[in-house]
Amino acid sequence: MNDYSKIFELIEESEVITIFGHMNPDGDCYGSEIGLREALRHFYPQKKVYAIGGGYTRVPQDFPTFDDVDDETIKKSLAIIVDLSNKARINDERAFLAQKSIKIDHHIFTEKFCDVEYIETDKVSCTQVLTNILLTHFDYLPQSAANPLFLGLVTDSGRFLYSPLDENVMNIASKLLSFKAETKKIYDTLYETDLESLRFKAYVYQNFMIDDGVAYMVFTKEQLEKMEMNKNMVAPQVNLISNIKGCFAWVFFAEGEDGIVRVELRSNGFPVQPIAVKFGGGGHLQASGCTLNDINDYVKVVEALKESYKCQK
Amino acid sequence: MNDYSKIFELIEESEVITIFGHMNPDGDCYGSEIGLREALRHFYPQKKVYAIGGGYTRVPQDFPTFDDVDDETIKKSLAIIVDLSNKARINDERAFLAQKSIKIDHHIFTEKFCDVEYIETDKVSCTQVLTNILLTHFDYLPQSAANPLFLGLVTDSGRFLYSPLDENVMNIASKLLSFKAETKKIYDTLYETDLESLRFKAYVYQNFMIDDGVAYMVFTKEQLEKMEMNKNMVAPQVNLISNIKGCFAWVFFAEGEDGIVRVELRSNGFPVQPIAVKFGGGGHLQASGCTLNDINDYVKVVEALKESYKCQK
Repeated sequence: MNDYSKIFELIEESEVITIFGHMNPDGDCYGSEIGLREALRHFYPQKKVYAIGGGYTRVPQDFPTFDDVDDETIKKSLAIIVDLSNKARINDERAFLAQKSIKIDHHIFTEKFCDVEYIETDKVSCTQVLTNILLTHFDYLPQSAANPLFLGLVTDSGRFLYSPLDENVMNIASKLLSFKAETKKIYDTLYETDLESLRFKAYVYQNFMIDDGVAYMVFTKEQLEKMEMNKNMVAPQVNLISNIKGCFAWVFFAEGEDGIVRVELRSNGFPVQPIAVKFGGGGHLQASGCTLNDINDYVKVVEALKESYKCQK
Repeated sequence: MNDYSKIFELIEESEVITIFGHMNPDGDCYGSEIGLREALRHFYPQKKVYAIGGGYTRVPQDFPTFDDVDDETIKKSLAIIVDLSNKARINDERAFLAQKSIKIDHHIFTEKFCDVEYIETDKVSCTQVLTNILLTHFDYLPQSAANPLFLGLVTDSGRFLYSPLDENVMNIASKLLSFKAETKKIYDTLYETDLESLRFKAYVYQNFMIDDGVAYMVFTKEQLEKMEMNKNMVAPQVNLISNIKGCFAWVFFAEGEDGIVRVELRSNGFPVQPIAVKFGGGGHLQASGCTLNDINDYVKVVEALKESYKCQK
């Protein structure tokens, strides 16, 4: 699906454009919404363009922020929804009041909910999809758009670490730098750390376990309470124990206040997804998740991983 | 100095080419030597091209390695010396037996020791300089050259983190990916970690100090002995305590067996170099080093940093 033309047909004929993203926004969602808004404001100064959202905080202080928009404005607008595959996860349901809608995304297709849908699943970030579209159409971007687009590219790609890492990712990055994306400012904000997170890392590095090639860490709810953290704060940090020599998979088990355990499984090649599926979860081949009803069941997951690894050899 | 022509004049007229780098080679030195050799072997199959060196180990197992070369071969060769600004740090002094010599580097110029010298100090790695030269001349690279060149680019740039990070760095990376650089294989090797280094990180995160915006860590020789490490293993890891909120500089003090302390100073903008110079050292504005004769003098360095910061405000 490489036809951007319908996107620009709708944009050209709309006087008001509202941009939406997903709940619990990440850098890619912020970057896509704000980058698109800044680009459209630049190229169509006569149109009214708004980005609805907020909540992502790893943004340099002087970078542009979101807009407050009333229902009436949204109703007469073209809504562009970015970085969202699952309708229910929209950051503001008023998006569906709009006259027409466009979806631009890089996730695997799950459902159609816009008039025009443009999805490229071989792109590491939605900002990559957007930058390609914008550059194909305009061949230029203002710095105010290049900045958030670079921020999105860098966060979703793990700073050019995660796949798909291809020629286009780097080429897009090169273009954004040519449009004066402020990389140092972005990096300084993204990588600022604090005492608490360093002490948390120390705790992990001292307490993780290794069992026959599986590196893992178990956080009980009592431990998390003591650290004033919760399962959703710690589980995504599973890559703290990535790539340990001799280990083929790494897992974080984090127990919630309700006893439900969030499990995040990762690997460098070994397929962890079947194990996640076995325990009622899913995800990508090398990055999956599931839940457990009892923290002591972590043993079952570790055993299943070991068993699966033995069968593969 | 943007004239590659003399480099290729000498290469064209030489039947034997030997390639050298610096002592204690890093990824950029490995990548420059091997990348250049593989490219020259590809484009000049009738010439004999050798790379002399070894000792850098973060290389995927199936990547090409160095050559054993006798003195006679070197004597009749054109020597190409890469990633070296200081003659005394050559990895093999036999380089200076060669008939003619070329230097290709990205460090600040210190001394002339080759017939043709090509230096670009605005490039983050020597592999970046080399890739530009090779692509300008040939417009293509075999995978066997793209792999080590990407490895060098990624190590010296901290995976696209360190400056100078410009359009060209990303463009070069894009080109190397188009020539099938095996990024996953390179990353898996570069980022493989082990229990010891994770436990070391834990130790640092638990024991570093903060004094009025200066984050620092003092390693006495007794502590290093206990950890079976030495000052040259720990000092370069100063960035473990980088970018802590509220800190303007971070420093590692590591005492050697002889009592001489290696000091590494870093910042995100604050000029640490004058402090390094004050204590007899030097370096870059935001990344410098010096030595102390007494580990207890770490206090003097921390105080000097605080004083300098106050004066700047």
